[in-house]
Amino acid sequence: MSHEALKFDKIAGPLIEKAKQDGAETMWDRDVAMKSRCGFGDKGICCKICNMGPCRLSPVEGKGAQRGICGATADTIVARNFARMVAAGSSAHSDHARSLLHTLHMTSPDGDYQIKDEAKLLSLAKEYEVETEGRDIYDIAHEVAEIGLMEFGKPFGTQRFIKRATEGRQKLWKELGVEPRAIDREVVSIMHSTHIGCASDMESIYALTVKSALSNGWGGSMIGTDVSDIIFGTPTARQSEANLGCLEENMVNILVHGHEPGLSEMIVFASQDPEIVQLAKDNGAEGINLVGMCCTGNEVLMKHGVRLAGTFYQQELAVITGALEAVVVDVQCIFPALATLSECYHTKFIATSPKAKMEGARYIEFDEERALEIAKEIVTEAILNYKNRDRNKVLIPQEKNKSTVGFSINTIVGGLDKVVNSNVDQLGTVKPLADCIMAGVLRGAAGVVGCNNPKVAHDNSHLTIIKEMIKNDVIVVVTGCAAQAAAKAGLLQYEAKELAGRGLKEVCERVGIPPVLHMGSCVDNTRILRLVTEVAKYLGVDTPVLPVVGAAPEWMSEKAVSIGTYFVSSGVDVFLGTVPPVTGSARFTDYLTNGLEDVYGAKFTVNEDPVQLAQAMLDRIEEKRTRLGI
Amino acid sequence: MSHEALKFDKIAGPLIEKAKQDGAETMWDRDVAMKSRCGFGDKGICCKICNMGPCRLSPVEGKGAQRGICGATADTIVARNFARMVAAGSSAHSDHARSLLHTLHMTSPDGDYQIKDEAKLLSLAKEYEVETEGRDIYDIAHEVAEIGLMEFGKPFGTQRFIKRATEGRQKLWKELGVEPRAIDREVVSIMHSTHIGCASDMESIYALTVKSALSNGWGGSMIGTDVSDIIFGTPTARQSEANLGCLEENMVNILVHGHEPGLSEMIVFASQDPEIVQLAKDNGAEGINLVGMCCTGNEVLMKHGVRLAGTFYQQELAVITGALEAVVVDVQCIFPALATLSECYHTKFIATSPKAKMEGARYIEFDEERALEIAKEIVTEAILNYKNRDRNKVLIPQEKNKSTVGFSINTIVGGLDKVVNSNVDQLGTVKPLADCIMAGVLRGAAGVVGCNNPKVAHDNSHLTIIKEMIKNDVIVVVTGCAAQAAAKAGLLQYEAKELAGRGLKEVCERVGIPPVLHMGSCVDNTRILRLVTEVAKYLGVDTPVLPVVGAAPEWMSEKAVSIGTYFVSSGVDVFLGTVPPVTGSARFTDYLTNGLEDVYGAKFTVNEDPVQLAQAMLDRIEEKRTRLGI
Repeated sequence: MSHEALKFDKIAGPLIEKAKQDGAETMWDRDVAMKSRCGFGDKGICCKICNMGPCRLSPVEGKGAQRGICGATADTIVARNFARMVAAGSSAHSDHARSLLHTLHMTSPDGDYQIKDEAKLLSLAKEYEVETEGRDIYDIAHEVAEIGLMEFGKPFGTQRFIKRATEGRQKLWKELGVEPRAIDREVVSIMHSTHIGCASDMESIYALTVKSALSNGWGGSMIGTDVSDIIFGTPTARQSEANLGCLEENMVNILVHGHEPGLSEMIVFASQDPEIVQLAKDNGAEGINLVGMCCTGNEVLMKHGVRLAGTFYQQELAVITGALEAVVVDVQCIFPALATLSECYHTKFIATSPKAKMEGARYIEFDEERALEIAKEIVTEAILNYKNRDRNKVLIPQEKNKSTVGFSINTIVGGLDKVVNSNVDQLGTVKPLADCIMAGVLRGAAGVVGCNNPKVAHDNSHLTIIKEMIKNDVIVVVTGCAAQAAAKAGLLQYEAKELAGRGLKEVCERVGIPPVLHMGSCVDNTRILRLVTEVAKYLGVDTPVLPVVGAAPEWMSEKAVSIGTYFVSSGVDVFLGTVPPVTGSARFTDYLTNGLEDVYGAKFTVNEDPVQLAQAMLDRIEEKRTRLGI
Repeated sequence: MSHEALKFDKIAGPLIEKAKQDGAETMWDRDVAMKSRCGFGDKGICCKICNMGPCRLSPVEGKGAQRGICGATADTIVARNFARMVAAGSSAHSDHARSLLHTLHMTSPDGDYQIKDEAKLLSLAKEYEVETEGRDIYDIAHEVAEIGLMEFGKPFGTQRFIKRATEGRQKLWKELGVEPRAIDREVVSIMHSTHIGCASDMESIYALTVKSALSNGWGGSMIGTDVSDIIFGTPTARQSEANLGCLEENMVNILVHGHEPGLSEMIVFASQDPEIVQLAKDNGAEGINLVGMCCTGNEVLMKHGVRLAGTFYQQELAVITGALEAVVVDVQCIFPALATLSECYHTKFIATSPKAKMEGARYIEFDEERALEIAKEIVTEAILNYKNRDRNKVLIPQEKNKSTVGFSINTIVGGLDKVVNSNVDQLGTVKPLADCIMAGVLRGAAGVVGCNNPKVAHDNSHLTIIKEMIKNDVIVVVTGCAAQAAAKAGLLQYEAKELAGRGLKEVCERVGIPPVLHMGSCVDNTRILRLVTEVAKYLGVDTPVLPVVGAAPEWMSEKAVSIGTYFVSSGVDVFLGTVPPVTGSARFTDYLTNGLEDVYGAKFTVNEDPVQLAQAMLDRIEEKRTRLGI
């Protein structure tokens, strides 16, 4: 496919040309070297679960191997592989949340980490039945952290946050026996049940998968979002910019990349420290330019307005600019390739997490006990590296776009309050949003989330779908790399309302928001989940009734599979733009794309053509409206 | 390979011939249909961890794809795949132990489950710092269960049982940072760190793997063994028989198969219930013949002397005899193929665990609250099925062999006491064993454990190695399907001493034991771990010093990879007779087979030729003796 995946990216071409001259390899080179993908793996009918194999089944029914050595059918093998993807995705998100709880547990009034959103902490404490009257806020925080940590490992009971769901969902999950227990246990359950000679019944494997996915959506990720807001502050609307044009010619450029916000938050502070800024100036720079990428980028963008360098697929391009003094990474979605790539430049590739030691990286372990100190150490390394930048090897693209970000539920509800007649209606509810949808001013809402994937043209699926939605009066909320694609394309600015249909445009104008709202990182998909739930509760219905859809147009990570599964299990239809490795089982594929609707009231739809996928989303929204009689 | 794997099995041929006539498919047919194994998967250089792939690297250095799309090298990909195997293996074992703790938590003086080994419970209570003075034994049991359950999910601290290890190991694990935390957390850690874009450094991935493996060996599995002994009684030496010749022509034959002992224990009782036995007689049978297979078989064999029908690879052969009224399964190592196979006969294939619902099986969910009642229901189903047995389709092989089983550490130490001069020495220690080894009467000890695998001739590697060991005065302890291979071959009977060298033979005669000691199921490998540790402690050394080795000659399951890893990390060399999927990375392979020795004092050795593998084990034992100066 060569650089086919880049056909809509104006700035990639020159940088890739530069990479060639610099002797640097990129993902697109590796994609070419890979030649064709394995047809067995692609269809999910390859099984490496025991050492009697690997087994690979014939994709043709009745011809060749139809079962693994143990007798596992394509249905079983595909379902097991899918389950393990969800287990890994839930693990990644939830382990992220666990770190945040440990950070909450060490907050102190004079420490590096403090409580920024007391109201949210008190609200969570109340939900956790923690005594708050007359207690020090930090004592409360520590008790809340301990209770939160028990959600990962408690021997009895189910996830506390499932009580946040609609009554309909709670009832359904109980009936189906998919109420998630301790988060870690649900991962272990999957790994056990997919071991050789355990579960072979496809639907029962999927039910275990749902439990782990729900323990992510209504457990790990939801805890992650709440605790992140408590420690770092709940996001509020703010301006920023996005794309590689955010790199600066005459400043120390530091890229933070990964997912966990603990370190990047400290790097924000460190890079603003007057002494450190002075050090940058002493080293010949005009200052320090911190930029973000992937969800670490989203975290510092949402909470501090730190500018975005770009999305997942641009991580190599950022290095190839030759203008980065340091790439500082924590966990998830970091190309191991950055180690060798950064050797072609002066860029320091700094790994910081014991969960993600990178071969060939400089390793500075992030210790939360000395958080700011370590952040300063890292920023200092970057500053001292400024002198090594080779001006002849620098190519900074000019492209960047303005964005408005920070749309937590609080921000959205606060914005909606502007259109509430406070003489008649209550402030601080989702009523205006529900009213707009019921009245047809908005036809519905769509969450567009997820990664980039070289199997499709980068960003194109995100943008095609987002534009189709807003044009048809469907308000869009975004997270993850989808949000960053939108940011780069200028869809997160107020002016993008001009691309919206009449109804949505009017809403944008009255509320003063863009038609596409950035809700955060990939753990923050739970903000979307809660917003949908709040609207359903307000209307007194269950989630599947609502004209609301979710899409992961360019997904590639196991986290995305877990997210998709918790959304469908929560009653929201999910539309995928790259094909999951399930097509080797016609039955399992049919179960995901049809059968689930009978069970959960929602299902998956898969189509690699973004125009067709967008149409399917719109059709579904209209179908829901018709059923609702609106 | 056709039936090459069966070349040493006398009874398989006629049964497979019969299967053909009956129109039944077996694993050997499927093995033929599979044709060649995937070379990428076989070498571990296929990556399905994200949906940018699947990626498969060229096995030839410098030619073809050398890295995945993300830049992951063969070293990273192989290490991640290996880590996930360990995560799954640890999950399977530990989840088994979790079930036992829940059972312990529901024991009551008049319930189906009671405390059988009070001394062991009190000893564990003491270790867990549970108050025992003047308390009801069941109150103690329930508190112990709660503490045990917290070992899976506690947010802080490390596994309690690592204190049972030698001081040397404890110190080393602390220094290396591999002390295992909560069991479930270590699984999640691996799943997170092996997610796309997390850990790429091979050695750090292996360190995470060690933590999960140790949380199995010194956590889940060890808890499993202890709690199983507490509830079902610590095994003592008893006689039994093994092989398909244990099926009876005129009795209701029920096969229990899988791993968790909760249900099978109840089936033992149910099948002895006078009313149920009478029902069998009323239905034309002479009685009920309960037989076991795999580790559920080992559980009821060790604790009740229930006869063994055979090993893992014989599960289909057992059905093909046409003489089984029911195959009752719980979890792990159960061929999904049994569903369709049993349809060729009158056999009822009954799945019982929500962790392992089998497609095409009759599902009777095992509910521990009604344990005996459900067991009776299952046995009754089998009895009522007796009339459906087609006498023309019955072929029961004659082969079976006598065995002495039940060698818990208590049994072994108790046996050794017979040779202690109680005027001089203390009873109840491992001193006699240590003395024999130090004196050279025994050259050393070998644990031979693990599965069957059609990649090698079934049972042949187990038996070749065991015979070589005992011939050379190396005492052998066995678990899992290796133990069953030995049982079928008559190596677990006292008379097998004739195959032993002079020193071992003398030990057998003085103590009255066979040269090969059956220590239990695959979770019970922790008995071996503790025995080795006790000898090391007695001698005041660390485990790697001892002339002790472990072997998994025919391993196939992910559990085996976890077991192998915890043994090596515990200082015991492990010898593998089938090749793990790691050879695509020369570095990782070298790390496992050489590098680990510098870190843990032990390493893996891999050789598919059992004669050569046995020689390597003997060489290693002699090398250790030389180093010890004995």
